[in-house]
Amino acid sequence: MITRMSSLFLRTLREDPADAEVPSHKLLVRAGYVRRVAPGGYSWLPLGMRVLRNIEAIVREEMDAMGAQEIQFPALLPREPYEATNRWTEYGPNLFRLKDRKGGDYLLGPTHEELFTLTVKGEYTSYKDYPVTLYQIQTKYRDEARPRAGILRGREFLMKDSYSFDLDDEGLEASYQAHRAAYIRIFDRLGLQYVVVKATSGAMGGSASEEFLAEAPTGEDTFVRSTGSDYAANVEAVVTPAPPAIPLAGLPEAQVHHTPDTPTIETLVDFLNAAGLGRTFTAADTLKNVLVKTRMPGATEWELLAIGLPGDREVDVKRLEAALSPAEFAMLEESDFARHPFLVKGYIGPKALLDNGVRYLVDPRVVEGTAWVTGADKVDHHVIDLVAGRDFTPDGTIEAAEVRAGDPAPDGSGILEAARGIEIGHIFQLGRKYADAFSLDALGKDGKPVRVTMGSYGIGVSRLVAVIAEQSHDERGIIWPRNVSPYDVHLAVAGKDETQKAAAEKLAAELSAAGLDVLFDDRAASPGVKFADAELIGVPTIVVVGRGLANGVIEVKDRRTGERQDVPVDEVVPTLLGLVRG
Amino acid sequence: MITRMSSLFLRTLREDPADAEVPSHKLLVRAGYVRRVAPGGYSWLPLGMRVLRNIEAIVREEMDAMGAQEIQFPALLPREPYEATNRWTEYGPNLFRLKDRKGGDYLLGPTHEELFTLTVKGEYTSYKDYPVTLYQIQTKYRDEARPRAGILRGREFLMKDSYSFDLDDEGLEASYQAHRAAYIRIFDRLGLQYVVVKATSGAMGGSASEEFLAEAPTGEDTFVRSTGSDYAANVEAVVTPAPPAIPLAGLPEAQVHHTPDTPTIETLVDFLNAAGLGRTFTAADTLKNVLVKTRMPGATEWELLAIGLPGDREVDVKRLEAALSPAEFAMLEESDFARHPFLVKGYIGPKALLDNGVRYLVDPRVVEGTAWVTGADKVDHHVIDLVAGRDFTPDGTIEAAEVRAGDPAPDGSGILEAARGIEIGHIFQLGRKYADAFSLDALGKDGKPVRVTMGSYGIGVSRLVAVIAEQSHDERGIIWPRNVSPYDVHLAVAGKDETQKAAAEKLAAELSAAGLDVLFDDRAASPGVKFADAELIGVPTIVVVGRGLANGVIEVKDRRTGERQDVPVDEVVPTLLGLVRG
Repeated sequence: MITRMSSLFLRTLREDPADAEVPSHKLLVRAGYVRRVAPGGYSWLPLGMRVLRNIEAIVREEMDAMGAQEIQFPALLPREPYEATNRWTEYGPNLFRLKDRKGGDYLLGPTHEELFTLTVKGEYTSYKDYPVTLYQIQTKYRDEARPRAGILRGREFLMKDSYSFDLDDEGLEASYQAHRAAYIRIFDRLGLQYVVVKATSGAMGGSASEEFLAEAPTGEDTFVRSTGSDYAANVEAVVTPAPPAIPLAGLPEAQVHHTPDTPTIETLVDFLNAAGLGRTFTAADTLKNVLVKTRMPGATEWELLAIGLPGDREVDVKRLEAALSPAEFAMLEESDFARHPFLVKGYIGPKALLDNGVRYLVDPRVVEGTAWVTGADKVDHHVIDLVAGRDFTPDGTIEAAEVRAGDPAPDGSGILEAARGIEIGHIFQLGRKYADAFSLDALGKDGKPVRVTMGSYGIGVSRLVAVIAEQSHDERGIIWPRNVSPYDVHLAVAGKDETQKAAAEKLAAELSAAGLDVLFDDRAASPGVKFADAELIGVPTIVVVGRGLANGVIEVKDRRTGERQDVPVDEVVPTLLGLVRG
Repeated sequence: MITRMSSLFLRTLREDPADAEVPSHKLLVRAGYVRRVAPGGYSWLPLGMRVLRNIEAIVREEMDAMGAQEIQFPALLPREPYEATNRWTEYGPNLFRLKDRKGGDYLLGPTHEELFTLTVKGEYTSYKDYPVTLYQIQTKYRDEARPRAGILRGREFLMKDSYSFDLDDEGLEASYQAHRAAYIRIFDRLGLQYVVVKATSGAMGGSASEEFLAEAPTGEDTFVRSTGSDYAANVEAVVTPAPPAIPLAGLPEAQVHHTPDTPTIETLVDFLNAAGLGRTFTAADTLKNVLVKTRMPGATEWELLAIGLPGDREVDVKRLEAALSPAEFAMLEESDFARHPFLVKGYIGPKALLDNGVRYLVDPRVVEGTAWVTGADKVDHHVIDLVAGRDFTPDGTIEAAEVRAGDPAPDGSGILEAARGIEIGHIFQLGRKYADAFSLDALGKDGKPVRVTMGSYGIGVSRLVAVIAEQSHDERGIIWPRNVSPYDVHLAVAGKDETQKAAAEKLAAELSAAGLDVLFDDRAASPGVKFADAELIGVPTIVVVGRGLANGVIEVKDRRTGERQDVPVDEVVPTLLGLVRG
């Protein structure tokens, strides 16, 4: 197939769009792949359509290959199913809501859990029907607070979403693993650099969950990974490795010290190191007790919760949120302290907490036998050598302390380093949340109903166009991986010489006949303009019919490496077929 | 490719859905192609997806082949462009409107004229850029007052819409003809019976316009066609052939008669025939003068308009509307008659109208030399032998009289007959309406701006699934044309015999290896259930591995004709390839 640039609906731009910050946004607009229509709303021009379709085809192939079945729901959906799961309300301002001419409430689907569940319930009745996995590749709508970065975070976007339906946890695990494998094949075929990170489940509920993050310095998501293995995780999902317990025998006694004017960790450490106690203290030797109040959704009463963590670490609010979910939490107010006079601000210790029945969870590093400097529940007093498991026994552990680059990796493989990425896929053991909401049961072998368990799996298809451009570009333009490139070959005539034109026409026809998709720059533009556009557009192989033709050669250039080779005219087609087909 | 019915997400229904009236709706639901989600909102199940994708592929191929370039706009669009063309208001309750989180006005695109125009304006500047034709295959939204007939008239549907952009009328005509030819190829490949009817332009403005109507007794559109040629037209677009003028010389004088109690055509004709005037009168000999008032959009004053037409015909309101468009019209009220005492109700004649300056338009049959019985502008009086062109000269003609089966065809080829159809395509010379709204100009050769002229072309892609089923079914189910069938072959095992199962498995594998898509009924259901499902689903070729296998034959059945042939086992693959590939 040949597309002639003389008639292609494409005008490249020399300047970056004013609202663009990330490279993919700049380049996709400049190279004429997309155009902005509204905040978070983009139109796809012909080049963009071709890349989008290539990606969509790879996603579809792999979904079909794993036995998932394609269906499609409307985007305009009635309120009722979303009311049943409370998402009509829970989604808040992120949901586009509208009324029809009769005043009925509708929404533009942000995800389709409700519809998938109801559809399976509508068709299937028996245990023999299961398992089944359904998917759609469909336009989704989310009224993002800050649509940004072009098609990276739009308000209307193309998504592949799929759901697995199984009768038991083993089935769900198998469906989950099948999706995991399919996603790896998809992202590998797309030529992406990505990591699979353990994720918390977030607002959607459920248990096992992993995110596929494309590595990109411009990414919105931070994650950590091990220097020594392929371990990677969302910060929320990092499990702190606990050090080994220390035998209690022979540990020094706890001692209360008068430590005037030491309400902060820093002042306390300075005081102790100046006190001539014969050893050096650091913030990591202190046990900081942070108080919050929590309650389960729907509850009215708050409950106190104390979190004990090494004094050199802050509480990471997102990790705390994930650890407490679905319970919510809030900081204490002055009135809370007033109501609980045993809480001596700046000097709170485990003893007062435990004596007064406050739930007390500690960082996993606070293992049996560790000795701590902590508050003595009295102004200007701290206790030294307070030993966990001897002098106090917390109610459990909690993952609330910040994770830092340099921390040991949970799998013991090395240390953690921080990185940024863009979410490209999410797989997720949803469990029975939606099956419960709609009573999705299968009639079991024994005649009794079996509640179905679900998995939820998503890929941001239109976002991938930007993610690939984000990972694969240089200062001159995009560099498409072959599998998604809008064309196999970008063919340009350098001069206005009729012989060159005729040779290029002939070559274009031969390449097309050989099954290659050719973008043919047959315009009457200068060679400089043509070469710049070729680099900007980013087809991986650029062929230039120029002066070399007089010597019987045509230039074949690799867009990524910049390497050029002069290929004899009659070897150009086989050479290009070799490059394209690998 | 093999799809096993044992795992296919499909449950056929024995009963018609309660809300279904037309065959396609009943069958597509019963056979498991679509499911209703909301009024006018349907989900596509796996079989439906396959048919939809097949149709979409044919549309895309032909659009690409004619040089149209695919792009895609968002469905969620900002108000401003639609405000500029006044369509934000004009669309009335048919438009889905909504607000985003910041209170901005948005709509769900019903058609995308504004966006296409603005996009071309954004990219193109010079006359050298033109012509260009762009298209998209995209989900559209219209808040229909009465969504009906399943996917035939939904509120969310898939449409191919395209626009041509040319510098002059000849260019537009060429683009229009190219689309016309492409549409004929598309609908022919889809195996549809359809007519191309001349259409009025309706609310969209513009000049030349044709509709593609699929013939169907359940269709919402009526049209007429000639018994003697391929002439076909919307009733609104029928041009009445004028009879030849009659020489005025020697025609009898007009005479006023006292015709007591004859306020209606019927009483008048009876009176005259009983009056012994020496000839017989029919309603067709009378000239009825119907009064309406009209005004142009935006005007406040109404103007009187009299329409003279043969007394045997009624005014067709839709034809009148089309003839007067864009002016609107209304019936006269008592107060209007009171204000114009020269209008003698029941006895209005041309004289009073013309004497009092009322605009007077007549049916094209009222040619010079025709003699009429009509009102004498006086209660209980009529005039006989009032001759057009001699006794009165109207201001012009108007196409407002009803069209009837039996009327002569405008092309002189025969007579008109009435038929019903479903609109499947519309092609349309839009002209400069949208180019004017957005000042879409090309810089001409001479440096002066040239206003661009546009064509607009649409195909209801998802509707076509229903239209094909509407035209191609019998009492047992759907009969898909090969080009759109979800599978090439429906293969069923009749018995539970292991030999039959093994032979069917082998055949399925061989057919798939030969490149055919096989729907393989490997379920443990009874032969009756399997055969009924096969007829319902409608794959054009049904292959049954049954008792004949013992004699070395497999049954191949044509779904449409019901013809069966026993084919020797080793000839089944070539036989089926012959059937499928033609």
